[in-house]
Amino acid sequence: MHPRKEVAWEAAQLIDDAKKEVAHEAAMMVEDGQVLGLGTGSTTHYFIQNLGERILTEEIEIMGIPTSYQSFFLAKECNIPITTLDEHLPDLAVDGADEVDPNLNLIKGGGAAHTLEKIVDSSASKFVVIVDESKIVKELGDFPVPLEVMPSAYRPVTDKVKLMGGVPQLRMAQMKDGPVITDNHNFVVDVQFEKIPTPHELETALNNIPGVVENGIFTDVANKVLVATTDGVKSIKKP
Amino acid sequence: MHPRKEVAWEAAQLIDDAKKEVAHEAAMMVEDGQVLGLGTGSTTHYFIQNLGERILTEEIEIMGIPTSYQSFFLAKECNIPITTLDEHLPDLAVDGADEVDPNLNLIKGGGAAHTLEKIVDSSASKFVVIVDESKIVKELGDFPVPLEVMPSAYRPVTDKVKLMGGVPQLRMAQMKDGPVITDNHNFVVDVQFEKIPTPHELETALNNIPGVVENGIFTDVANKVLVATTDGVKSIKKP
Repeated sequence: MHPRKEVAWEAAQLIDDAKKEVAHEAAMMVEDGQVLGLGTGSTTHYFIQNLGERILTEEIEIMGIPTSYQSFFLAKECNIPITTLDEHLPDLAVDGADEVDPNLNLIKGGGAAHTLEKIVDSSASKFVVIVDESKIVKELGDFPVPLEVMPSAYRPVTDKVKLMGGVPQLRMAQMKDGPVITDNHNFVVDVQFEKIPTPHELETALNNIPGVVENGIFTDVANKVLVATTDGVKSIKKP
Repeated sequence: MHPRKEVAWEAAQLIDDAKKEVAHEAAMMVEDGQVLGLGTGSTTHYFIQNLGERILTEEIEIMGIPTSYQSFFLAKECNIPITTLDEHLPDLAVDGADEVDPNLNLIKGGGAAHTLEKIVDSSASKFVVIVDESKIVKELGDFPVPLEVMPSAYRPVTDKVKLMGGVPQLRMAQMKDGPVITDNHNFVVDVQFEKIPTPHELETALNNIPGVVENGIFTDVANKVLVATTDGVKSIKKP
């Protein structure tokens, strides 16, 4: 392997190990009998697999409420019984994030599932975010804010977002010639803002644009963040 | 006919005549070459038909952007060429309302089309509301506020709405055994509030509930309201 490729590969491996470690720690928090919100993404993937192992080895009885088709199929594969928000509200939701600030405000939606994630995560008695240390930021906004947008509203929404100082980009799908379509049949528009000094105000303003189903800023939802660092897993609580 | 039935029939007839009159007045505002937002509902129905007549008799060239399948099919029937918000933003949108207050705040959504209505109406250079006089109120809130709600979020949304003092009711369809499904595949939840002293704040708060796609409170959208009264059509502008 070329030395530079090897370094990149080792870095990716370290991040992957960190994801596994923090997912394991979250899975060990789960108690027998709980209903769980199952997030979407690479870190939560390991969390769901760990739950499957605990069902197998410890015979814990749990139920899962998936936040996407992705986590739905994975949960079924891991023999986690599925339930709905109509039947049960989650005791605990565990989900990843793309950015986390010191007040536990988040940007989510890299996985195009942030609408159902916000529905499930905000319905849980407790919402724990699991991330590797690269996701911790002083202020949100390096990562663009994903908006779930109704296709018919694409132009008016992007026009309005530009007036708010954002640079919108329609998210395109890698495996087909066209835009990403969410589980709810909508587009994802990634909006880069220069900075986001007041996340809650921006979250509210974006949700008030007609045609925006939900946006990826999560304020007042997370109760705790578990961060995988080179010195092990650290926990951040709301200040 | 029974005398009481006759009185009710005459009242309904008067309201229907009023709807026709105000729809006609709105249609006469339309200029050759304009792109029009086409609202949804019984009053807008007459507006769209009037446009069809003007195309036939005056040969005006216009295009329409429908706010629902209902207005889409009617527009086609009336030979109004259809366009989209991606191609054109409306010069003028004309739409009905269920309640109008003195500041031109509205409740809309009796027709289950308020999400696309808000997208189209708020994208127009000018938005004119056409109503009969029974829709004019001092304060919004006798009419319940329609929420378009993602089916998976039905319970958490109704739980949150109750905490806000609302009484939610899932809108059921008359011609099938089940809930109304909107053009966007969602439910409609009608929420009765005791009163709505600050419509804009409630509009924003409702839109910030995860799973609420859009709600039927329209603030800062209408430019003018045409009201059919027993003394003819009156115009209300923003104070």
